[in-house]
Amino acid sequence: MRIGILGYGNLGRGVESAVRQNPDMELVAVFTRRNPEDLKIQTETAKVLNVSEIENWKDKIDVLILCGGSATDLPVQTPEYAKIFNVVDSFDTHAKIPEHFENVDKAAKQGGKVAVISVGWDPGLFSLNRMYANAILPDGNDYTFWGRGVSQGHSDAIRRIKGVKDAKQYTVPVEKAISAVKNGENPVLTTREKHVRECYVVLEDGADAEKIEQEIINMPNYFADYDTTVHFITEEELKKNHSGIPHGGFVLRSGVTGFNKDEKHLIEYSLKLDSNPGFTSSVLIAYARAAYKLSKEGQSGCKTVFDIPPAYLSAKSPEELRKTML
Amino acid sequence: MRIGILGYGNLGRGVESAVRQNPDMELVAVFTRRNPEDLKIQTETAKVLNVSEIENWKDKIDVLILCGGSATDLPVQTPEYAKIFNVVDSFDTHAKIPEHFENVDKAAKQGGKVAVISVGWDPGLFSLNRMYANAILPDGNDYTFWGRGVSQGHSDAIRRIKGVKDAKQYTVPVEKAISAVKNGENPVLTTREKHVRECYVVLEDGADAEKIEQEIINMPNYFADYDTTVHFITEEELKKNHSGIPHGGFVLRSGVTGFNKDEKHLIEYSLKLDSNPGFTSSVLIAYARAAYKLSKEGQSGCKTVFDIPPAYLSAKSPEELRKTML
Repeated sequence: MRIGILGYGNLGRGVESAVRQNPDMELVAVFTRRNPEDLKIQTETAKVLNVSEIENWKDKIDVLILCGGSATDLPVQTPEYAKIFNVVDSFDTHAKIPEHFENVDKAAKQGGKVAVISVGWDPGLFSLNRMYANAILPDGNDYTFWGRGVSQGHSDAIRRIKGVKDAKQYTVPVEKAISAVKNGENPVLTTREKHVRECYVVLEDGADAEKIEQEIINMPNYFADYDTTVHFITEEELKKNHSGIPHGGFVLRSGVTGFNKDEKHLIEYSLKLDSNPGFTSSVLIAYARAAYKLSKEGQSGCKTVFDIPPAYLSAKSPEELRKTML
Repeated sequence: MRIGILGYGNLGRGVESAVRQNPDMELVAVFTRRNPEDLKIQTETAKVLNVSEIENWKDKIDVLILCGGSATDLPVQTPEYAKIFNVVDSFDTHAKIPEHFENVDKAAKQGGKVAVISVGWDPGLFSLNRMYANAILPDGNDYTFWGRGVSQGHSDAIRRIKGVKDAKQYTVPVEKAISAVKNGENPVLTTREKHVRECYVVLEDGADAEKIEQEIINMPNYFADYDTTVHFITEEELKKNHSGIPHGGFVLRSGVTGFNKDEKHLIEYSLKLDSNPGFTSSVLIAYARAAYKLSKEGQSGCKTVFDIPPAYLSAKSPEELRKTML
């Protein structure tokens, strides 16, 4: 399987690294909007090229992994490249998934290609677990908690404040809320009761700490609905203690069965990730394998994690899977 | 979807109850080897019939759920009925799954029917989680823990001892072992280090407690490789405190990503179940829906949880699933 990468940020680098852990795959090309000569990759056998050359590679790449952002890159790129490549993306704007699906489906069918969208852990593995758990326990309640982990969007929002030099924001699930769910209490939880937000902020020289703290904790959509704590630290402390991109979370479903609905059950799925892009790219790679298999079967169109038989993600044969993992 | 049940033990009753929680399904018949008049079911609109009449129902049932045991019932029943019905079974003898698959696949293809085997939580949902986690993190270690829960097979083994009137055995995962896995220590664990076994035993009048305790803890295959505790209790205590059939467990995979393999990740799936048959039957019902959809598409043959697109388990449309759960 010949893999191409479009976009070489954290996620693109993660995909390059993940390809090495899968002997049935080979990275052949990385496409960038930058000057290719400015970009250093780790794979000597792969080419680095400007995105303008991508069409020349349509017969030399089996799956193109789109590593751009959901705000402006993927809504354009995924439909565009699904016409000429099997593609996988990590589109994660939940509310716009139906629209993205329609656009990509049309393009992929037109090109006779397979496009898998919204792959990663949420959307992705968390979605899968919500769906399986709902199908199995139709009478129940769903809970998704995120963290402890770095929210890139919230960190960026703080960095845009005047007087802030750098910042990192952690989303932290509230232990008490998780315990209530695990104890089968079926709590009704407000936004504030589910997560708290911890901010680590480096100020510019002479900035007004008190004013910036107020600006953060009252920021609508991002922080106003949460209990937020702001810690002012030095640039050195930020580098030393907050340079990673850990994340994770929990998907829980509590439900009942029995003629009297008196049998309680709890299904829990959780992730603890040292590196969000490191893990997300590993999920992308597994679904790239599925896209390739589906394409070889003659399928085309847009797919999500809900549509893909689990075995298609694995390098093992169905016989091996039944023998070793069932 | 018209559902039939073959075998009306704990699992059969669970299926009957689960059908009521799924408005797209209707229980039409329960087949038994006993005298049908001796069997009382909860669904007034469903017939109770002797298994000898089952062939007359081949056009009146969309999916037949096989609720017999894995030791002697299912190896015969699943291939037999897969010739004339779409079927789902919970065959759980892991070592014999490849052989069972071959037999059932041949029969189902011959009859143009879909047969889903080894459905439940292990094999079943635990298998799915082992498989997904392995495909995503190829460099890693797997751990499956069972319990705290009642093992029917081990309880039966105690009951067969002379002088034992009744007994219940709980399989209990060792907290220390789970913690080591969750801490990313990648421990190598012996059978004894993973689970302990707790036995609650009611003696016949005049039985020799000391002798029976030794017989239990030294029983090969069942107890000799574990730390086993035996509690002698009264029949009343057994009824009052140990009448349920709870179970559950954990599937964990720890793995690494990154060019230096220095990013650690932990994927965890866990179940806490008040009633093992109550939950297992709910999984069977969800896969019955999948069998029905696959059959309507013209597919045939034997399938496992690895082969079935997740969305097929749900009563919701693909559009609804993308909108509400992705």
